[in-house]
Amino acid sequence: MYIVCPDLEGILVPEIWISVAEKTGIEELLLTTRDVPDYDQLMKRRLEILKRAKLRIRDIQRIIQSMDPLDGAMAFLDWLRDRFQLIVVSDTFVEFADPILRKLNRPTLFCNSLVIDPDGTIVDYQLRQRDGKRCVVKALKGLGFKVIAIGDSYNDTTMLSEANEGTLFRPPENIKREFPQFTVIGTYEELKAELARYLEQGR
Amino acid sequence: MYIVCPDLEGILVPEIWISVAEKTGIEELLLTTRDVPDYDQLMKRRLEILKRAKLRIRDIQRIIQSMDPLDGAMAFLDWLRDRFQLIVVSDTFVEFADPILRKLNRPTLFCNSLVIDPDGTIVDYQLRQRDGKRCVVKALKGLGFKVIAIGDSYNDTTMLSEANEGTLFRPPENIKREFPQFTVIGTYEELKAELARYLEQGR
Repeated sequence: MYIVCPDLEGILVPEIWISVAEKTGIEELLLTTRDVPDYDQLMKRRLEILKRAKLRIRDIQRIIQSMDPLDGAMAFLDWLRDRFQLIVVSDTFVEFADPILRKLNRPTLFCNSLVIDPDGTIVDYQLRQRDGKRCVVKALKGLGFKVIAIGDSYNDTTMLSEANEGTLFRPPENIKREFPQFTVIGTYEELKAELARYLEQGR
Repeated sequence: MYIVCPDLEGILVPEIWISVAEKTGIEELLLTTRDVPDYDQLMKRRLEILKRAKLRIRDIQRIIQSMDPLDGAMAFLDWLRDRFQLIVVSDTFVEFADPILRKLNRPTLFCNSLVIDPDGTIVDYQLRQRDGKRCVVKALKGLGFKVIAIGDSYNDTTMLSEANEGTLFRPPENIKREFPQFTVIGTYEELKAELARYLEQGR
């Protein structure tokens, strides 16, 4: 039985931190896992910047509430959920993802969480576990699923390697160059065609 | 982070095999995992009965298409998905569950599959793995989740034992008597109140 595990940002919704950078005008927040492979280093910098700018959880949530899924993402997800089981696997935080997940019809999301002070300052983040994306794929394989993972960033590559099928969706040039072993796909239509091939082999 | 794993039949939708028994008038199909603890024995009998009555996959799917979620199940699931991650964990078959899952807004479902002849005769079934429900809970705990499992039948009890919190929802008397260690809940409102307690301890 197949299960599809897409990343969230870049695959179904815009990069959350880039939206925050644009709406707040803080250029330093433009960095993502596409640019900085070390996730912990990246997150510590982001939280420092938010603290310095006195941006609290409510401010960030307001920005995320104004975001929309990527063009075509809803129709793609509907098609997908009619045919496959689905778990969205992301390194984002449940406190960030909530408003935009509602717009995607609430797919199951495996992600991380924030540590927030009573005054709303984001003081830290909690990974569910180290290399969490890869662990999810491994666990699902252990449950008898064949896993199709879809990602676009450094933090997706271990999950793509672990999956039965790993696909890069609209990756930036550096990822494409560094990980030539993965199929590269540019549109939802191509992604559907790719997924349809597995359906023929049985669900 | 919490994840809720409810069983499907009896918790969110009526017992599929009972509906099939009622619509076809075949009384022998009234047996469920509530009555026969050995799932394999139960399934082999069911498939034999279908074959004898010349009922094929399309006939069963037509019956399932006419079923509706239990009263209040949709509102309960909406409430749940606004607050928790969700995976429905069932021993049913993906070929059966599809039409009714659509009515539930397509939650992720971990279940089994059927082996179907080209003429539509259901010849066998495939468990994703032995004691699959318990394995799901174990895997999710391994991924850093706290698991709240909700069931009503013999085949739920190992998953309820393995979970961080195991609850029986509207179980029959024999299950209630044999498994006094689990909380017993009778309505969605009580279930929501029970789940809300965990939210207070953080997501």
